[in-house]
Amino acid sequence: MRTYLDCYPCLLGQALEAARMARADEREQRHILERVLDLLRDVPPSSKPPQISQPVHRIVREEIGSEDPYRETKARSTEEGLALYPWMERALAEADDKLVTAARLSIAGNVIDARPGRSYDLREELERSLSEPLAIDDAEALRAALNEADWALFLADNAGETVCDRLLIETMGIPVTYVVKGGPIANDATVEDAQAAGVDRVAELMSSGSDAPGTLLGQCSEELRRAYEEAPLIIAKGQGNYESLDEAGPRVFFLLQAKCPVLARDVGVPARSLVLRQGDGSDRDCPDRNDEGLDTEGTTEVNDREHRL
Amino acid sequence: MRTYLDCYPCLLGQALEAARMARADEREQRHILERVLDLLRDVPPSSKPPQISQPVHRIVREEIGSEDPYRETKARSTEEGLALYPWMERALAEADDKLVTAARLSIAGNVIDARPGRSYDLREELERSLSEPLAIDDAEALRAALNEADWALFLADNAGETVCDRLLIETMGIPVTYVVKGGPIANDATVEDAQAAGVDRVAELMSSGSDAPGTLLGQCSEELRRAYEEAPLIIAKGQGNYESLDEAGPRVFFLLQAKCPVLARDVGVPARSLVLRQGDGSDRDCPDRNDEGLDTEGTTEVNDREHRL
Repeated sequence: MRTYLDCYPCLLGQALEAARMARADEREQRHILERVLDLLRDVPPSSKPPQISQPVHRIVREEIGSEDPYRETKARSTEEGLALYPWMERALAEADDKLVTAARLSIAGNVIDARPGRSYDLREELERSLSEPLAIDDAEALRAALNEADWALFLADNAGETVCDRLLIETMGIPVTYVVKGGPIANDATVEDAQAAGVDRVAELMSSGSDAPGTLLGQCSEELRRAYEEAPLIIAKGQGNYESLDEAGPRVFFLLQAKCPVLARDVGVPARSLVLRQGDGSDRDCPDRNDEGLDTEGTTEVNDREHRL
Repeated sequence: MRTYLDCYPCLLGQALEAARMARADEREQRHILERVLDLLRDVPPSSKPPQISQPVHRIVREEIGSEDPYRETKARSTEEGLALYPWMERALAEADDKLVTAARLSIAGNVIDARPGRSYDLREELERSLSEPLAIDDAEALRAALNEADWALFLADNAGETVCDRLLIETMGIPVTYVVKGGPIANDATVEDAQAAGVDRVAELMSSGSDAPGTLLGQCSEELRRAYEEAPLIIAKGQGNYESLDEAGPRVFFLLQAKCPVLARDVGVPARSLVLRQGDGSDRDCPDRNDEGLDTEGTTEVNDREHRL
């Protein structure tokens, strides 16, 4: 997805929110704001939103001198997910259609959002996801793809949501490689977060090798790119993965909540919709040149020593 | 009021909204966005919000080549106000406390907002303003000030709201000088807008001599500054006047709806509150050095040939 003009004020607001989430003082907040204004002025118009929010969050981490300002928030989200795991297990046990139910629970988990003012009740969302129609419902195509595929690549999104993904992975019944971020970025799940959610018990964990809040293939490790190229089936969770891979082909299934009105318009659904959408683009060559990172002064590159765990 | 960090993303969003309101195409919108990013990067941290939104709107006008992109919107708001004038007259005729009722109707009119997505129902707002408690209620101080004053300066805000102000002016029972903007700026009332609302029949109209969306005394005409200095009583309508004059003394009465959450926090009331607040600052020297305009490349200065009409 391209970065719409409406994304600019939102990205600037997100920088401030992230700064406050990271307990930056007013002086630090102003520095962050100024650096993000410079960044927004310089980004190529063809950038995807994750290509901009990646350096935005790097700036926040640099200015406050913390490698993972969302650590506590992520731990809380994981605990919250784990507390509801037995409830989800029961709902799944009682369901006639296990796959659709597990997919809906995984989509419900995508409500988890670390942005202040974006309050949610995970239990309510889980219930909503079991009763509300999917705005885009390619579940039968997913079922057919699962019958054909001998393994799947699962591109994760946020910490906590990982617990809901666990149930979907167990239901899928084929080996799954679960891809988490190569370094802390907002509340996106890293290896530690996936482990805390117990995903390592049901899937092989792989780092994307990048701290982009999505899957910018051009930035990812050689290993991830190979896995992406070879995977017969790809589950892409959340807005960041949609924003980075929306031109992907029918191997890819996007499972998300359209939390942002701009993204909802791009997907073609009302805001807050539950979406299970099969990719209909022509799979692009991998890696995509356009996925390169943006320069930010003083930016520290992600250490991608350990891609595969 | 100082410009809070939260104002920056909002000002950027306002620039886009104004560009669309003015029917700018995507290329023009991008130019506007880029120029506003430069502007936000360069504004002194001590700026007041109207000192920033003034050049923001100048940039919009320049890029789209229109002197008054809100002309139609303002005309519609004035018509809407005039259509409700008989209803307001009746409400006032039936009221026991004419002054408080007229002040509440004038505050209700401040709901008028040209920002897309900020929908309102003027009739509902008028009814709400007659029943809901004022979050800050200095009506008795206003009554006392009116008993002492032999004339009043009335700093207007938006077109349409002008119709509601007319009833308050008639109720005040002393000569009133009604100050409108010196040039088009968003949906703020100019001389033409005040005339269309019939305010010229109940008050003397004066141009501020500036197209700032508020009253930045340092930018205003000599005549306005003298009037401000001499006025025994000043009614300051709306957020822009609060943002520019919040340190004013007890001669000044702010009548507004706290539409913006940042301003509401500054005033100390919940968002959407109805406010009638007496100034408690120490009246500052006039003109204030800090009220100078900000440079914007290619900015056209307001022609202030005709201050007094």
